[in-house]
Amino acid sequence: MTLIDAALGKLPVDLLITNVQVANVFTGEVYPADIAIYQGRIAAVEKSATLPPRQAVDVLDGGGRIAVPGLIDAHLHIESTLVTPAHFAEAVLPLGITTVLEDPHEVANVLGIDGIRAMMAASQDIPLKVEYLISSSVPSAAGLERTGGVIGPDEVTALIGDPHVLGLAEVMDGAGILAGDERLRAILRAGGGGDGMRVDSPGVIEGHNPMLRGRELAAFVAGGVDSDHTLSTPEDLVEKARQGVVLMLQERYLSRESIAALEALPHDIGLCLVTDDVAPDYLLERGHLDQVLRRTIELGMDPMRALRSVTLNPARRMRLWDRGLIAPGRAADIVLVDDLADFHAHTVLVDGKIVAQDGRCLWSAPARDGMYDLTGTVPLPQQTAADFTIRAPVDNGRVPIHLIDCVPGQTLVRKSVVDIDIADGALQLADDMAFICVVNRYADAGERAFGVIRGLGIRQGAYATTYAHDGHNLCVVGRTPADMARAANAVIAADGGIAVVVDEAQTVIMPLPIAGILSEKPVHAAADQTRALGHALRTIGIDHPYWLMRISTFTLPVSSGLRITDVGLVDAGAGGGVAVFVKLRLGD
Amino acid sequence: MTLIDAALGKLPVDLLITNVQVANVFTGEVYPADIAIYQGRIAAVEKSATLPPRQAVDVLDGGGRIAVPGLIDAHLHIESTLVTPAHFAEAVLPLGITTVLEDPHEVANVLGIDGIRAMMAASQDIPLKVEYLISSSVPSAAGLERTGGVIGPDEVTALIGDPHVLGLAEVMDGAGILAGDERLRAILRAGGGGDGMRVDSPGVIEGHNPMLRGRELAAFVAGGVDSDHTLSTPEDLVEKARQGVVLMLQERYLSRESIAALEALPHDIGLCLVTDDVAPDYLLERGHLDQVLRRTIELGMDPMRALRSVTLNPARRMRLWDRGLIAPGRAADIVLVDDLADFHAHTVLVDGKIVAQDGRCLWSAPARDGMYDLTGTVPLPQQTAADFTIRAPVDNGRVPIHLIDCVPGQTLVRKSVVDIDIADGALQLADDMAFICVVNRYADAGERAFGVIRGLGIRQGAYATTYAHDGHNLCVVGRTPADMARAANAVIAADGGIAVVVDEAQTVIMPLPIAGILSEKPVHAAADQTRALGHALRTIGIDHPYWLMRISTFTLPVSSGLRITDVGLVDAGAGGGVAVFVKLRLGD
Repeated sequence: MTLIDAALGKLPVDLLITNVQVANVFTGEVYPADIAIYQGRIAAVEKSATLPPRQAVDVLDGGGRIAVPGLIDAHLHIESTLVTPAHFAEAVLPLGITTVLEDPHEVANVLGIDGIRAMMAASQDIPLKVEYLISSSVPSAAGLERTGGVIGPDEVTALIGDPHVLGLAEVMDGAGILAGDERLRAILRAGGGGDGMRVDSPGVIEGHNPMLRGRELAAFVAGGVDSDHTLSTPEDLVEKARQGVVLMLQERYLSRESIAALEALPHDIGLCLVTDDVAPDYLLERGHLDQVLRRTIELGMDPMRALRSVTLNPARRMRLWDRGLIAPGRAADIVLVDDLADFHAHTVLVDGKIVAQDGRCLWSAPARDGMYDLTGTVPLPQQTAADFTIRAPVDNGRVPIHLIDCVPGQTLVRKSVVDIDIADGALQLADDMAFICVVNRYADAGERAFGVIRGLGIRQGAYATTYAHDGHNLCVVGRTPADMARAANAVIAADGGIAVVVDEAQTVIMPLPIAGILSEKPVHAAADQTRALGHALRTIGIDHPYWLMRISTFTLPVSSGLRITDVGLVDAGAGGGVAVFVKLRLGD
Repeated sequence: MTLIDAALGKLPVDLLITNVQVANVFTGEVYPADIAIYQGRIAAVEKSATLPPRQAVDVLDGGGRIAVPGLIDAHLHIESTLVTPAHFAEAVLPLGITTVLEDPHEVANVLGIDGIRAMMAASQDIPLKVEYLISSSVPSAAGLERTGGVIGPDEVTALIGDPHVLGLAEVMDGAGILAGDERLRAILRAGGGGDGMRVDSPGVIEGHNPMLRGRELAAFVAGGVDSDHTLSTPEDLVEKARQGVVLMLQERYLSRESIAALEALPHDIGLCLVTDDVAPDYLLERGHLDQVLRRTIELGMDPMRALRSVTLNPARRMRLWDRGLIAPGRAADIVLVDDLADFHAHTVLVDGKIVAQDGRCLWSAPARDGMYDLTGTVPLPQQTAADFTIRAPVDNGRVPIHLIDCVPGQTLVRKSVVDIDIADGALQLADDMAFICVVNRYADAGERAFGVIRGLGIRQGAYATTYAHDGHNLCVVGRTPADMARAANAVIAADGGIAVVVDEAQTVIMPLPIAGILSEKPVHAAADQTRALGHALRTIGIDHPYWLMRISTFTLPVSSGLRITDVGLVDAGAGGGVAVFVKLRLGD
């Protein structure tokens, strides 16, 4: 208990931060105080003028800056940044993010519990504190897609006791749980939920619930799922808060109206700001959780309230009793900033050690870690144009098909039915259409399903990606089967990745050899590659502010509208598969 | 997971509460809604007008009242009400209190871990939810008193895993911990504290810290002790909040200034209102936690904020995830009241069952439970006047003595030195003085220490009590040794209790045969007896608004000023014993 003695001044502290204003997110005040740090923890926060001087091994002059707690991201998928946890740490520590709540949903879809364990192991000895929530929806829609990994109740039970596992990650298939799906309910039970909240629950149970309202919302919450981070109107946010749901807002769902609606509630509802998915180029250009914080303040929230939403509120929600506040006994995760509203980290400490300064990470990821062994996950042979050709039910004529209809500027899709011409057995695409094909890369490697997509903007070429939510099978979209094969082969040759075929002469490839979804490179290299991909996509006509989400979510069977997996077209709302050609059954 | 199905309306709910306004302490709003209850939990809170009717086994018309969550008292000692947990439950359930955080500090001082276990067992099958914090300071000042029970690190370790044990109760001896007392630090470690807050801490660590400020306060908090419920000035409260301390206010420490100071902080600090110690007559006449709530509102706090301080805030502090809010998944602990500010429980439900109505408890304590076996704890022989006679160092003369000086109207005492006359070996008390004697009733039964007390008001007679904080040895105060023996013998004959000797002809006795500190009677009978005691005490000159605390805390060696235990006079501030006669050493 030397921390007590260090606090008393009986022992010299390791570091004394002087000349700072402390942002106290508990009381909401900002005032000058020194911060004494011992063995990684805050020993005291004190106004030095009134006290005898303190012995310290090191002194850090804070230059009059504001000291805030290290930021805590209560919900994200590191995989969305397409890098390993270590490379992710290098990129976000300089932004002031010191703890993240990782849902390893993508790696779990590829590799199951082994993938989660590999990621947890690779998160152990890095200065970023990566805490885990167990991916609860792998697959997100059982029977409607075939994933590489499956997380069931046994896997939840096996993981839930780990000290870095803080609960169950976003439960997505609310409809399935409400309908009585036994597998989903068993997962919920294994996570401590099912019949309400329990005092002895092993952790939190997080929700992903864009759809449920009224009695269905109540039932979902009664099952123990009491957070949400999906797109909601201000009215929906208030309805969820009234049901006791902890709200988590991400940047693309922020609005002045939503913030105003929540701030208008008489009591503080412990809002958390989160990132969910951040692409590598976006991270370098705009930022990460710090960007969500800035944007929230821009949209009208008081800076200290917003700061509490990325520090104390997520710490409490996640039962991280040692974090979220600059006060005695807490971990010395501290960020110095010049300004609260225009939040830019100047100096970042984790456990009392400076890990980043002036935007530079002082820590370097190891040359390789266990993540680099997660290769060989795209065991597909060379593909041909014939492999991407839809077989039509008639040789010539005009037939109705189901198609995936893009909603411009969003990642939503709708199910439409249109008539399409067939000539010599080949579908005649309209100008705004493309073929889409999903190829299984796991136990049923090579099996595939076809569809037609409209409104994506693609005018030429093709793209292929093994980063395709949630199953991360190989998804290929193109104007011609030949270009689709070319894109697919580029990805297969790279052992996973994203390839854009601009034309016969030009293919841009971002290799993602780790589980077929992560790069071996640092974020800046990944960002260069994603920028090149984005440029190539714009060249072939695909222009979207969140293009990575746009091109990788046609395959998401748990989401609304018409989607496609390796099994076939899926109408999630209707809860089942549909055939490309209307009136024919799935698999025909 | 039938709660989900009940919420959906697929199953009839057990109870539907209609025609109520729901006080949502999460958002701070009050609005009309029905509350659907199934198997003891809230399935849904819904505006019925917009929904299809719901099947319910029973319907309760709320009569337009406000439905609030059952009140949660985050810190108390049931023993202060001088009754068993079951009788306590009968008394507080009708007031709307449905969960209490019990620190069995008194019974632990008498009987150690066996006493705690007996009390926990007697709390199992009663509708009041009694959660336990392990008494951390038994004895409160080791070496300065001899108690019947001792709680050390082994006992903490043995108890901490119990599902109804939520942490470590008030750590009192901050000075001892800061000074490096190994036993105290080992207790702190066993409770999960010592070197700051831990993510995997087994529970909360509560503090009792009226004294520490500045670096000493920081050191105490750095040890993991981060709540406080002691008397503090508004400035001290703010200082503690700035150190991250969860503040708990009890009625006698409430003031308009304190509330205003905390409400002026920009952020909600999660204040909890608590009772600590409530005498049985006070409980019946004024109330319990409901009275603290009313008083807090009277003193200026917004009613919904005050309500949150007795519901959601304590639930969160104590990690009672299933309580504190009327929302899906939570326990159906619900109170119907006519008015929030003038809070008086009309109907009280625990786990969806009506347990009290119109001030009457519908549940009855069993005729006896395991508490009734905790007898035979006052193994003392008949006492004589000679047993209460102080031996003076000289036969005749005037000598300086240390005396316990009462502070009028408070429970504070000071150490004073006065000259006293001795005639024929007998101390000649001034009119405002009395003798005080503490007799061990445990392993060293019969051993005793003497002192002189001033300013208590006693003009005649004597009182004796085995309810005497914290060791609960037999404490006897009187004007003459003969009256002291009479009072002591009344208590010994009752196997424990409080006796007031008014004169030779009149002795009022309240038997407390359970551990020498608790009555076998219900609260109303105990209140009658305490009223009679209070009357008798006023007759002999002792008049104090909290007379039970006044007469039972001269023996509290952890508190400031001069105190007396079975070992001798204790100057807690100086950390050791002092002799009655100045310059003589303790034990001489």
